[in-house]
Amino acid sequence: MCWLATLLVFAAALCAAPAHAEDGYDLWLRYRLLAPAQVQHYRPHAAELVAGDATPTQTVTRDELQRGLSGLLGSAIPLASTVTHDGAIVVGTPASSSLIAGLKLDLQDLGDDGYLIRSVVANGHAITVIAGRNDIGALYGAFQFLRLLQTTQPIDRLDLRDAPHIKLRVLDHWDYLNGQVERGYAGASIWDWWKLPDWRAPRYTDYARANASIGINGTVLNHVSSGATILTHDYLQKAAALAGVFRAYGIRVYLSVRFSAPIEIGGLKTADPLNPQVQAWWHAKADEIYALIPDFGGFLVKADSEGQPGPKDYGRTHADGANMLADALAAHGGVVMWRSFVYADKPDDDRAKQAYQEFKPLDGRFHANVLLQSKNGPVDFQPREPFHPLFGAMPHTPLMMEFEITKEYLGFATHPVYLGPLYEEVLAADTLAHGKGSTVAKVIDGSLDHHALTGMAGDANIGTDRNWSGSDFNQANWYVFGRLAWNPTLSSRDIAEEWVRMTFSNNPAFVKPVVAMMMGSREAAVDYMTPLGLLHLMGPGHHYGPAPWDASEAEADWRPVYYHRADRQGIGFDRSRSGSDAVDQYAPSLAAQFNDVQQTPEQFLLYFHHLPWNYRMRSGRTLWYELVAHYTQGVEDVQQMRDTWQHLDGYIDAERYRQVAAFLTIQQREAQWWRDACIAYFQSVSGLPLPPGFAPPQHPLAYYQSLSFPYVPGFSSW
Amino acid sequence: MCWLATLLVFAAALCAAPAHAEDGYDLWLRYRLLAPAQVQHYRPHAAELVAGDATPTQTVTRDELQRGLSGLLGSAIPLASTVTHDGAIVVGTPASSSLIAGLKLDLQDLGDDGYLIRSVVANGHAITVIAGRNDIGALYGAFQFLRLLQTTQPIDRLDLRDAPHIKLRVLDHWDYLNGQVERGYAGASIWDWWKLPDWRAPRYTDYARANASIGINGTVLNHVSSGATILTHDYLQKAAALAGVFRAYGIRVYLSVRFSAPIEIGGLKTADPLNPQVQAWWHAKADEIYALIPDFGGFLVKADSEGQPGPKDYGRTHADGANMLADALAAHGGVVMWRSFVYADKPDDDRAKQAYQEFKPLDGRFHANVLLQSKNGPVDFQPREPFHPLFGAMPHTPLMMEFEITKEYLGFATHPVYLGPLYEEVLAADTLAHGKGSTVAKVIDGSLDHHALTGMAGDANIGTDRNWSGSDFNQANWYVFGRLAWNPTLSSRDIAEEWVRMTFSNNPAFVKPVVAMMMGSREAAVDYMTPLGLLHLMGPGHHYGPAPWDASEAEADWRPVYYHRADRQGIGFDRSRSGSDAVDQYAPSLAAQFNDVQQTPEQFLLYFHHLPWNYRMRSGRTLWYELVAHYTQGVEDVQQMRDTWQHLDGYIDAERYRQVAAFLTIQQREAQWWRDACIAYFQSVSGLPLPPGFAPPQHPLAYYQSLSFPYVPGFSSW
Repeated sequence: MCWLATLLVFAAALCAAPAHAEDGYDLWLRYRLLAPAQVQHYRPHAAELVAGDATPTQTVTRDELQRGLSGLLGSAIPLASTVTHDGAIVVGTPASSSLIAGLKLDLQDLGDDGYLIRSVVANGHAITVIAGRNDIGALYGAFQFLRLLQTTQPIDRLDLRDAPHIKLRVLDHWDYLNGQVERGYAGASIWDWWKLPDWRAPRYTDYARANASIGINGTVLNHVSSGATILTHDYLQKAAALAGVFRAYGIRVYLSVRFSAPIEIGGLKTADPLNPQVQAWWHAKADEIYALIPDFGGFLVKADSEGQPGPKDYGRTHADGANMLADALAAHGGVVMWRSFVYADKPDDDRAKQAYQEFKPLDGRFHANVLLQSKNGPVDFQPREPFHPLFGAMPHTPLMMEFEITKEYLGFATHPVYLGPLYEEVLAADTLAHGKGSTVAKVIDGSLDHHALTGMAGDANIGTDRNWSGSDFNQANWYVFGRLAWNPTLSSRDIAEEWVRMTFSNNPAFVKPVVAMMMGSREAAVDYMTPLGLLHLMGPGHHYGPAPWDASEAEADWRPVYYHRADRQGIGFDRSRSGSDAVDQYAPSLAAQFNDVQQTPEQFLLYFHHLPWNYRMRSGRTLWYELVAHYTQGVEDVQQMRDTWQHLDGYIDAERYRQVAAFLTIQQREAQWWRDACIAYFQSVSGLPLPPGFAPPQHPLAYYQSLSFPYVPGFSSW
Repeated sequence: MCWLATLLVFAAALCAAPAHAEDGYDLWLRYRLLAPAQVQHYRPHAAELVAGDATPTQTVTRDELQRGLSGLLGSAIPLASTVTHDGAIVVGTPASSSLIAGLKLDLQDLGDDGYLIRSVVANGHAITVIAGRNDIGALYGAFQFLRLLQTTQPIDRLDLRDAPHIKLRVLDHWDYLNGQVERGYAGASIWDWWKLPDWRAPRYTDYARANASIGINGTVLNHVSSGATILTHDYLQKAAALAGVFRAYGIRVYLSVRFSAPIEIGGLKTADPLNPQVQAWWHAKADEIYALIPDFGGFLVKADSEGQPGPKDYGRTHADGANMLADALAAHGGVVMWRSFVYADKPDDDRAKQAYQEFKPLDGRFHANVLLQSKNGPVDFQPREPFHPLFGAMPHTPLMMEFEITKEYLGFATHPVYLGPLYEEVLAADTLAHGKGSTVAKVIDGSLDHHALTGMAGDANIGTDRNWSGSDFNQANWYVFGRLAWNPTLSSRDIAEEWVRMTFSNNPAFVKPVVAMMMGSREAAVDYMTPLGLLHLMGPGHHYGPAPWDASEAEADWRPVYYHRADRQGIGFDRSRSGSDAVDQYAPSLAAQFNDVQQTPEQFLLYFHHLPWNYRMRSGRTLWYELVAHYTQGVEDVQQMRDTWQHLDGYIDAERYRQVAAFLTIQQREAQWWRDACIAYFQSVSGLPLPPGFAPPQHPLAYYQSLSFPYVPGFSSW
């Protein structure tokens, strides 16, 4: 028994390193030991691992499986060069594995990135094969296999195949080179530009792992307004160092470029896209980039908007500008992602109409490697907007979805709002462009108008905070974005459950209430912030808290009063044919529906219509009553979320539990503030008494108007 | 044997959580398992722990000993309510432990914060007692006891007693409320003001542990130029939340206050310190603070310097200003730390003289709870300066040392420069104020002029980087500051060895070369940056890299050319009696020495004297030769450091090893740049050929002058 005792001491010694608390760093890749019954069930199916290491992607695939399985099952999985036992796991491609080649699997229609996971018999043994046509597909399959264990799904009779519906699945970082993150609520930029390229922080690898695990295959490193310096040779070398870390994980680097870079760092006098010198400068710059980063993804461009330069400075169109850049990248296989989010210098009668007015006439004018990147709604990532009318309206142009993952308008880091239902609502929306079933998802995935070049971008919520996203629940928004970019028809509820199981616990007593809480969290925020189709009621500039009264912004169409148009008679923006006629930017049958106040869904009511306070809602109650009721409901929902969480103490680690509890405290205080400030203001406008049974605001309107917030995070005045 | 097998599986399971890499977060409190021989040696002396938990400090003391001993020795130490075995460890005070009371230990002269660690027999058992007069002394003793194990010292016949030489041992954070850290090279501020007071990050506790482990007992949370908002009630509540975390660790919170706060947030028309309304405002503000933070430490003030408001705006003296604030705090036991670092609007003939000129006449005019906080040298934390002439010159005023821990002028995060020798050089410097042996250390610890109120401040190098300080080696500067604040006569070499053992390894094959490398690292930086008494040659504003040519700063005395005064004939600032006569700010015998070029130490030569390029040095070579030789030596020393490190691969974990290696790469490139740029510039001025055998600069001077750095970290234009 002596050697056993020695072993025990040794084992204890291995464990003696101070245990790190669950601080959220591991995201959904925690790989903590499963319950004994699960371990017992899975271990026979993880007897040995047959995986190549001939390429960097193969190596990281093998490493991830070893790491994941040893964590989940409590012991290392032996590596084998060929199958020798039942329960082997074989991962690879027909090129990397003769065993997989010999199985003659039906891999053809998996595309470049797809995978297949199947329980088969090979060499006389029952094994699990994880295969793709390419290394990256095998890596995605490995993550999916681990996910099955992480969520305690059966793995004994597997026959799964999956491939991404969308080609470019991209995170847009709003990171400046000085470390600031615009609308970032999770600390500073994770790119330590100053120490690159010499020092490649281990965090970059974990970033790549997390993204690859949900299929994200591109990252735009810098903010769309971050200037031309990123294109200098020094900074390109830094970007190349990051690309070198990400490459094995199938992630390409993209850069946001400033349209006037040929002037600022190229010494030219113009950035006119039709000027041959300008074109030559961009071609040379592209060559320089590709010499450093052979798999460089391309450019993201914000032009002629919010003060950024663009082709209009030279009397050219967006298409002229985008095509000029696209031509410089085309020979190298790069793309241009051109943003449709534009502000005119002189606002039209309705800012919500502008992108459509500018871009719809350009349909068919963009070169083949240009995508038009549109925000999900026509205004700006509000808690709720109808889908953007460009979706379905430009059949000859690949439209790329831009979702905001960072919660600029949905409570920053401290309101645990799950964005899955928002994304799902937009993707499932029917444009009716080619009749019923012409969903936004089908526009985005290219199936509606037969585009092969497709994309979805998410404005990242990632920063140097240890938990990456400023709160544990915000990690779910990164996760759900990636999963929906892979397959925009997935259910946000299923994704939430997956995420909860991987991130917190498989205990159904925890999973069920938390998923329910998540699924209701966005509607609660809509209710306490901007119910019934209201939007843009937040504080000026920093976007923190309610300020429906605010008229301080220089531009009329940046002011809350521009959007809600409340007066003594009523409230709402008339976008019907009697108003700005924004409704006619939608397909005719949808336009007719939105034009008719009776047919307009109440959740968009005040977005499309200006209505009297005593307008009779479907409930039979007045608009004023319903407005107050929604605001109140939002606060009550948050109280319910807090109560739910209160009952979950002990199910997860103390550190993460306490942080969520603290943030729910903040959320409830701020939900109350939103409700009270908005009701106080709208009451001052409507002059109506509160409906009976509703508590008055805690303070007079003047109190809410007097508040100021000098150090709001994520604001560019930093 | 079945139960043993079960145990093994269980033990393996415990270990199965993914091991976190050594990322530097644990600082010098890693508590990793010691070598088996050490464990065997120590375990009999850690058989059980008798420790109270009647106060928060007692609880954290007990927790730290349990955590440390279980990590170092590989198994938990049992708690006991009284001594039952040989090898018990008893920790506490006579009040907390009847056993300690019964031992009648000689605790009287330990002061409030001291401790005693002694091997004794009690209850018939050989035990170790760790005792203080107060809880905090026992906590300091516990950390010292753990340090003995961490550095593999014997613990079987202990008889140690120690107490701090200095009363206030304080970190000054240069953190703005927006998260920026002025001269911070370790990420953003660790104070997440936005989420305080609701969310108290676990990192705050680890910050307190690290500080308490080296005796630091105060922290100034905000930058001296950070405005008045910190004094609003909302922010005081946030500060109170931090104070609540730190209290158990004996750490008091201080705040930097803006002298004009009564105007900015108080609504007054003046901040005149003699105005009764202003005085009343500060009294009321102090009352408000102490109601929230009963053990609040006091105020740090930068007044009438670099654009900050101050008493001079009202024709009052620094003493008027400091005393007014001190009076507001006095009833509560708070202090004012008034900075002597001042810039006049109109520079005198020699900026180095200004602080002395302004403050020396005020000696004796400050109230009893005011300390005058002086930087170590008369200019500004340069790689080398003579000690500040105020030390020894103000016998009636408690002078507080301000060291810079953050490496604003010594290579930011990426030059592994150990500041211990710099601190030691200053503290050991003899002011000769009361004859030989009147060291700066004795000024600071109050022994020279019999002050009970004493203090040392360090400008923190702490940020959100996972390793706290931007590099592993920078942690040593935080550590050595704390140890020297505890006892300014300690050897920086001993402290380096202690730190290396705790932070990296006890293996002598690692310890010896690394300590040697650290001990030479500051002199290397002096050589490649500012040898022979030169200083202030760095780039304007951001302070990155060499720019001896620079004359772009608005103020003459912010320009490198102001300091080196190089021309065709010679180089150096004449501060002798034939020049600015700064020498006569020192004690007469020292002034005579500095006034005489022959007696001036060569390391301060060009600080005190302007000399011809062909001036004959003690080596027999010319000044020009020696200058080039020093610059060259600095680069060679860094090459030597790299070589040393190259041979140490495998002695420590890969992550930290690689980061140090990457930073040494950066350091060598930048050392070469410093040397080449400075030599190219001084050669352009002197017109002299390079001495034979020295390589010419890699680029022409114009190249170095053309470089620009738009995103230097730590600079306030962020």
